[in-house]
Amino acid sequence: MSSLTIESTRSGIVESVHSVSVAVVDMHGRLVAGARNPGCFTYWRSAAKPFQTLPMVEEGAADHYGFGPRELALACASHSSEPVHRALAMSMLRACGCEEHHLACGPHPPLSQPVAEEAMRAGVVLTPRWSNCSGKHAGMPALTRHRGPPVEGYASAGHPTQERIFAEVLRWTGLPYEGVRLGVDGCRAVCFALPLQAMAAAYARFGASQEEAARRLREAMVAHPELVAGTGRACTDVMRAMKGEVVAKVGAEGIYCAALPSLGLGVALKVEDGDMRCAAPALLAVLRQVGGPRGLSLPEAELRQHAEPVLRTTRGEPVGELRATGKLRFY
Amino acid sequence: MSSLTIESTRSGIVESVHSVSVAVVDMHGRLVAGARNPGCFTYWRSAAKPFQTLPMVEEGAADHYGFGPRELALACASHSSEPVHRALAMSMLRACGCEEHHLACGPHPPLSQPVAEEAMRAGVVLTPRWSNCSGKHAGMPALTRHRGPPVEGYASAGHPTQERIFAEVLRWTGLPYEGVRLGVDGCRAVCFALPLQAMAAAYARFGASQEEAARRLREAMVAHPELVAGTGRACTDVMRAMKGEVVAKVGAEGIYCAALPSLGLGVALKVEDGDMRCAAPALLAVLRQVGGPRGLSLPEAELRQHAEPVLRTTRGEPVGELRATGKLRFY
Repeated sequence: MSSLTIESTRSGIVESVHSVSVAVVDMHGRLVAGARNPGCFTYWRSAAKPFQTLPMVEEGAADHYGFGPRELALACASHSSEPVHRALAMSMLRACGCEEHHLACGPHPPLSQPVAEEAMRAGVVLTPRWSNCSGKHAGMPALTRHRGPPVEGYASAGHPTQERIFAEVLRWTGLPYEGVRLGVDGCRAVCFALPLQAMAAAYARFGASQEEAARRLREAMVAHPELVAGTGRACTDVMRAMKGEVVAKVGAEGIYCAALPSLGLGVALKVEDGDMRCAAPALLAVLRQVGGPRGLSLPEAELRQHAEPVLRTTRGEPVGELRATGKLRFY
Repeated sequence: MSSLTIESTRSGIVESVHSVSVAVVDMHGRLVAGARNPGCFTYWRSAAKPFQTLPMVEEGAADHYGFGPRELALACASHSSEPVHRALAMSMLRACGCEEHHLACGPHPPLSQPVAEEAMRAGVVLTPRWSNCSGKHAGMPALTRHRGPPVEGYASAGHPTQERIFAEVLRWTGLPYEGVRLGVDGCRAVCFALPLQAMAAAYARFGASQEEAARRLREAMVAHPELVAGTGRACTDVMRAMKGEVVAKVGAEGIYCAALPSLGLGVALKVEDGDMRCAAPALLAVLRQVGGPRGLSLPEAELRQHAEPVLRTTRGEPVGELRATGKLRFY
């Protein structure tokens, strides 16, 4: 049986085990490789962000408000709340005549531990711009204002902005209306539950699409990976190291998706228990097994801290690691 | 097949799934109930603390340095670094002529989010007393000084203090020397890998033991549950609510152990992926299934936030929950 497992070791013994479901799919939605349950029905979470952002480009809102590649990259981001991320989100909001109080998302401690500690030391009161989703949220009022409806409620199911985004999700995944279930994300925007295989298909198409909006968004993410996540984060480092060969986006609860444009493939994976520490090791294991035989070379040394993160004592001595085991099944 | 699973839901859909192995054992080490792999070989982590503390009582070090029930409870704690915890750890250290620099453990952000935020806002530089294990670590130099060897290296394998503690672990678990493997815990002290069933046997015996040291330690934990964990933490709330019917101790990477003295039973469980959010929901599911039919009643309302914690958006609206499903197998 195909399997992909992330093991956590301590002093040479496996201490905890994480199962991963994987779908690797071509542009026609055909399964090329997989592990465990490639049809696993779960939430796309933040890995849906490129498809939540595309309507803003397609409808002309991005051009209307002067959003260039940096703004497009931030709209697709689960950022680390670094100063550049917060400032750019605010400038996007202001460009469409909105202020921070229009954002539906709530704040949370920054995903980057150094940024979180610095904010607390400085006595900062966290506000919505600090949300890792503030770029996506800033894009939604821009789309809304450009199209006409009131901004209020822009993040909730039933609002025209969310209807437009839902249509975009159906278009790229190829799923019928009844094949997707809507939920509420941590940032309060609509989130989408669908099979992993359909997420992977959307990424395969996104990676190879010749549509103007998709091309611009993809190039923006690859050109500004530091705006899609942040310093030392896996999305940023993988996109930088792979120089356009991989467009990668993490999602909460153990989701990772990626487009491999040169291979015409899309990847979607779910760490079944939702452990975020395991998402990047799982993605890199998939990239190695799928990309390796197809000529996609992974700069192993550069990405080692994401592929096999070292676990340490509270004094910093290494005591174990996360590591991937198991093999994908190829079809 | 027996199973115990913790599901995480979002907007009515199961998003992530956690498997739990369980052993419920009597004082003779016989399996009374279980789920998945009751023989699962893994680290005991902080759930070993009562057995790491017993030698300090048995050897007379606790009496020699004037440690009462509060100090004994703290020595068994994975505390929240509240002021009372830090002060008590320091007073234990000073009682045996040591200072903070003698502690082998390193600091980490407090397990309690409010305490962590307060410390960072105040610009505190975290030091070893802030470790959740500082009570255990403070007890080790006390045992060491009382017995004679130098304090240096007290936490490492091969030091006479760790040899003494290892012997105690073998005595309560009933395992032979070669049945336990040693590792390095996050706090740098020796930690012990052994089968779940043997951990449960040790707790069954600890809960019912008439030995003076075990009785004192057990009574100390039950009398001062706020020192064993902290405000709002599961160990504290479960022991308080169960009024001596349960002696509970959590460990890192999804470990929970408990003694049920009136039933002569011990419980050990491992969330296989190590998720700490799931450990308390799993323990309470086991207590309900094992204790219920035997007359042990769980104050459900009082413990609901630990049994079925609510998941919220970044604005605080409820969006899902953690919940236990599945049934133990009874033997």
